[in-house]
Amino acid sequence: MNYKISDKFKNLKPSAIREIFKSLGAPGAISFAAGNPNPDSFPVSDMRRIADEIFSNESVAALQYGITEGYTPLRKLVSERLKRVYNIGGPEDDLIIVTGGQQGIELTCKVMCNEGDVVLCEDPSFIGALNAFRSLGAKLVGVPLEEDGIDLAALEAALKANPRAKFLYTIPTFQNPAGITTSLEKRRAVLALAKKYDILILEDNPYGDLRFTGEDVPTYKSMDDEGRVLYCGSFSKVLSAGMRIGFLCADKDIISKIVVAKQVEDVHTNNFFQMICAKYIEQCDLEAHIAEIREMYRKKAGLMISALEKYMPEGVSFTRPEGGIFLWCSLPEGLSLDEFVARAGEKNVFVVPGTAFSPDPEAPNHSFRLNYSMPTDEEIDRGIKILADIARDMID
Amino acid sequence: MNYKISDKFKNLKPSAIREIFKSLGAPGAISFAAGNPNPDSFPVSDMRRIADEIFSNESVAALQYGITEGYTPLRKLVSERLKRVYNIGGPEDDLIIVTGGQQGIELTCKVMCNEGDVVLCEDPSFIGALNAFRSLGAKLVGVPLEEDGIDLAALEAALKANPRAKFLYTIPTFQNPAGITTSLEKRRAVLALAKKYDILILEDNPYGDLRFTGEDVPTYKSMDDEGRVLYCGSFSKVLSAGMRIGFLCADKDIISKIVVAKQVEDVHTNNFFQMICAKYIEQCDLEAHIAEIREMYRKKAGLMISALEKYMPEGVSFTRPEGGIFLWCSLPEGLSLDEFVARAGEKNVFVVPGTAFSPDPEAPNHSFRLNYSMPTDEEIDRGIKILADIARDMID
Repeated sequence: MNYKISDKFKNLKPSAIREIFKSLGAPGAISFAAGNPNPDSFPVSDMRRIADEIFSNESVAALQYGITEGYTPLRKLVSERLKRVYNIGGPEDDLIIVTGGQQGIELTCKVMCNEGDVVLCEDPSFIGALNAFRSLGAKLVGVPLEEDGIDLAALEAALKANPRAKFLYTIPTFQNPAGITTSLEKRRAVLALAKKYDILILEDNPYGDLRFTGEDVPTYKSMDDEGRVLYCGSFSKVLSAGMRIGFLCADKDIISKIVVAKQVEDVHTNNFFQMICAKYIEQCDLEAHIAEIREMYRKKAGLMISALEKYMPEGVSFTRPEGGIFLWCSLPEGLSLDEFVARAGEKNVFVVPGTAFSPDPEAPNHSFRLNYSMPTDEEIDRGIKILADIARDMID
Repeated sequence: MNYKISDKFKNLKPSAIREIFKSLGAPGAISFAAGNPNPDSFPVSDMRRIADEIFSNESVAALQYGITEGYTPLRKLVSERLKRVYNIGGPEDDLIIVTGGQQGIELTCKVMCNEGDVVLCEDPSFIGALNAFRSLGAKLVGVPLEEDGIDLAALEAALKANPRAKFLYTIPTFQNPAGITTSLEKRRAVLALAKKYDILILEDNPYGDLRFTGEDVPTYKSMDDEGRVLYCGSFSKVLSAGMRIGFLCADKDIISKIVVAKQVEDVHTNNFFQMICAKYIEQCDLEAHIAEIREMYRKKAGLMISALEKYMPEGVSFTRPEGGIFLWCSLPEGLSLDEFVARAGEKNVFVVPGTAFSPDPEAPNHSFRLNYSMPTDEEIDRGIKILADIARDMID
C-alpha cells in the first residue's frame, strides 16, 4: 500500500546517533559516538537485592497499573533531593515521573506549543530534543552557543524576531553535545530575557550530578521565582539508562496538563523500576555512588583532554568540560567534516558529526562530538591519535 | 504565571477512570470500575527467578540504553507467537515493542494523522485511545456498537460523510468497555469497507488471549493481505500491567515511521522487563499460564452474569462476554445515569458511567461498565445486589 504519513512524520529521520549506535559493534571499533553512561555506573548488586525485596514484599504494587503522576514515594524522594542538592522546588511546584528525560522534553513541547510555535534552542543541541520538537510541528530557532553559554545578543534578536517563541530549551550544565556550562552571569541574563519576552525555559539537566571539577552553578529553576522554568532530570546517568526513568518539576498548573499528556502516551512509567529507584535512594548512599561516577569520568575526561592536547594539530580546538560525558571538537574552517567523519569510520573510529546536533542540519559545520564515558582508557588514547592523524593529514 | 497551554491540551481532561481509580480505597469499597488484571495473573515467582538471572548474567544489556525497535529476541518471540496463535504477520510486516498498548495506539495516530483528520471508533470505546486521538487534534467520529460488532450501515455513512477519515480504531474481541466480540461476518464486511473507502484499521487486541468460552474469531490482521491493518497487543493482561510492555505489528513502512515517533517520546521501552518477557516466553509455558487466567475470569464472569440475572430488575440489560474483563450494563432509557452512579458511590460501589467511553460525552447515556477481574467472588455478588436494588428503586 501507499501510506499517507502525517505531514510532521513524512520527512522526519531517525536520530543519526541511534543509527550510528546500531552500526557499531565491528571488532576493534572505537566508539566516541555513544551517549551511554559507563556500565560501571550501574549499581547492579544493590539493584538486584532491592528487586528481590520488591518481588518478596510488594510484587502486586510493582506489577499492577500505577498512577500517571508516578510512584508516590519516588516523587517525594526526588523532590526532597532536588530541594537539598539544587534548591529546586517551591510551594507552587509539582513533580511527575516520566519515561526518561526524553519524555519530559517531548511532553513539555506537546502541552505548551501549537504547530508553528517557536522553540528556541542552543546551536548545537541534543538531537533527541530537536527531533521531538520537530515531530510536534514546532519551529526550531537555534541560537549560537559560546564558551560560557548561549550568545545573549543572538538570543535577544531571536526573541524579537519570533513573537511566537514559547520556550527556550537549554542544557546549561555540561551541555550535550558541547560539554559547555553556562555561567551564572549568563543564566541571570537569560532569565531576565525570558521575563522580558515572556517565554518559558525548559532546563534539561541530565548531567548536572556529574561535575568532576570546578564549582556548581545554580540551576535556572533555583533562581526562578515566578514559575517560568520547567526542570527536567533523569536517573539515566546515575543508576540505569535502560530503565527509562526521569522526572519533570514545574508549576503545578503545567504538571497537571503534563499528566494528561503522559496518560495518553504510556499511562505511567514502569512501576517496578520506579520502586527500585525509591528504595535505592532510601537504602543506599546515592551521593556516594554519584561521587564514584564523577571520579571515573574525571579520569576519562582528563585522558581525552591530554590525548587531544598531545596529538591534535594546530587549528583543531576542543572544549574542556567540568563534568558530564561529552566534549566538542572543531576542525579548522574549510576542512570537510563529512570527509573527516568518513575517514575516521574507515579507521574504525566513530564520532558524531556536528550536523546531527544542529537545528539547521544544512548549515556549514566543522565540529564533532566526542564521548569519553564509554571507551576504555586505552581506546581513548589510541582513538584520539587516529583522529589527530586524519586531521593532520587533511590540514597538510 | 498565566500559562498559555496548547490548544489541544487546554481543555483535555484526565481519564475519568483513572480519576475514579485514585479516589478508591475507602474501607469496604467494592470497585467494578477498574481496568486492572487480577494480580493472581502475574507470574511473580517465575519473573523473580528470571530477574535474578538477568542481574547475574546480562545486567549491562538490561540496564544500558537499547534500540528503539525493542529487544531483538523479544520482537522475534512475539512475532513467532502472533504467527502461531493468530496467523498474524507476513513478509511485509514488522513489529516494534512499545511502552504498553497505549503507546502503540497513540503513535499510530501521531504518525498517520494530521490535525483535523478523522479517526472512526466504536461508540462506546476505550477512553485511553479516545483521549490519545483527541490530544493529537484528530476528530473523533463514533459509530454505534451492536451486539455482534460495529453498525455497518452507520460505518459506511460515516465513511461517506468523512473523506478525511484515516483509520478505524476497533477492539473487535472482548471489547472495552462493552465486552462484545465482532462476528467474523462483520469483520469481513468492515475490511471490505476499509478497502472501498481506503482507510486503515487499527486493531487493538489487549484481551484476545482471554477467551473463556466460545470459538476464536480470526483477527482483522490475519485476514489482511494488503497492509491495511495495524495490530496492537500487550502483555498487560497476561504478565504484568505495571511493566508497560506492548507491541505493534504493521507494514514495515509504517513501523519505520513509528520507530522515529517512539524515539522522540521515550527512546525505547524499559529494557529489563523486555528481557523478562522474552525469557518468560522461552523458559516458561505462557499458554498454560494464560489458560489459568482464562479459567479464573471464566468463573468471575459467570458469577457476575449469575448475579445480574438473579438481582437485576426487568428493563436492565447486559452483555455476556466470551472473554476479557468487562461487561456492559444498560439501564432502561429515561433513568438518570448520573443519579445511578452517584447513588452506587454512596453505597461504596463504583462503576464507570458510559459517558466516559463515548466519543461524544454530551450525548445521552444510560449504560455503565462493570469489571469482574478485580473484585472478589463475594464482592461480585454483594455489589451487583446493591446496584440492582438502586436500579429497582429508581425504576419504581
